[in-house]
Amino acid sequence: MSIVIREGKKEDMPAVLNLIQELATFEREPNAVVVTVDDLVRDGFSDYPLFQTFIAEYEGEIVGMALFYNRYSTWKGKTIHLEDLIVKESKRQFGIGKALYDTVLTYAVKEKVRRVEWVVLDWNTPAIDFYIKSGARILSDWETVQMSEENLAKYVKSISNEIVGLKKTQLRSNH
Amino acid sequence: MSIVIREGKKEDMPAVLNLIQELATFEREPNAVVVTVDDLVRDGFSDYPLFQTFIAEYEGEIVGMALFYNRYSTWKGKTIHLEDLIVKESKRQFGIGKALYDTVLTYAVKEKVRRVEWVVLDWNTPAIDFYIKSGARILSDWETVQMSEENLAKYVKSISNEIVGLKKTQLRSNH
Repeated sequence: MSIVIREGKKEDMPAVLNLIQELATFEREPNAVVVTVDDLVRDGFSDYPLFQTFIAEYEGEIVGMALFYNRYSTWKGKTIHLEDLIVKESKRQFGIGKALYDTVLTYAVKEKVRRVEWVVLDWNTPAIDFYIKSGARILSDWETVQMSEENLAKYVKSISNEIVGLKKTQLRSNH
Repeated sequence: MSIVIREGKKEDMPAVLNLIQELATFEREPNAVVVTVDDLVRDGFSDYPLFQTFIAEYEGEIVGMALFYNRYSTWKGKTIHLEDLIVKESKRQFGIGKALYDTVLTYAVKEKVRRVEWVVLDWNTPAIDFYIKSGARILSDWETVQMSEENLAKYVKSISNEIVGLKKTQLRSNH
């Protein structure tokens, strides 16, 4: 069997974006992807990379990827968040997804992180069953909250121009 | 009113840990905090900081904090995750929590991130109402999945010593 799992490189980002788009379609949000290949190359391969990837190749073709990054738990310390694990629909059932999953979790042990975390859609029962069987738990009492770029801009415009004790203009970036 | 919101410094980490411990107790997990002051100083103030903080001072005393870091959405790109926003129980109702919330969201706009995300316990109705009123949405079809350090070690021990195409020992850290 010619499956190879390896670290992602800049040149893989067009194939990675294709996989991201395929997953968005599967998750019933085909128009949600605004990220570009240039974004992925800049954000994943700068001096302060915002993510890392593992790539799955099957007979020389890129057929899957896992994208992850560090997070920080105020209870546990450094953790890894697995943002996406995608296998091309036509290449499922060959164990490629499990090979990527195993690789990320093995990497997490080597990095000595205190937890690995990800999210799953509540209707994706086969995935949930697989995760639980491998030792993960589902935290069903926590809800995810998101504020979009658009609503963020609206909200910040609506609040007073001077935040208590700190003018908006005094906030500076560390990056 | 003598509320000051400012960026967190190393010297603030003992007070930050006290707030973290207080929140863990409020969230009914008093023994869950394993992070130490040394962890917070190392992880938040190295060349590759894993988080940033804003601190709230009220009459010279540290009474609240917000801890956040970058994440990466494969759909949207760079985002901010607000991990914790804590105000000492005895100092609530003075608008300190909102001042911290406003500061993080203002910072997020300046950083041009495409989203801000956080989680909330499903029984914390006052918080949920406040978030929705400010323009956030609750994604109730996503479930959080976590694998603990202990179960991670168990799982990785259980899998084959050679991951398809990649020996465990070939995985190297980028950090």
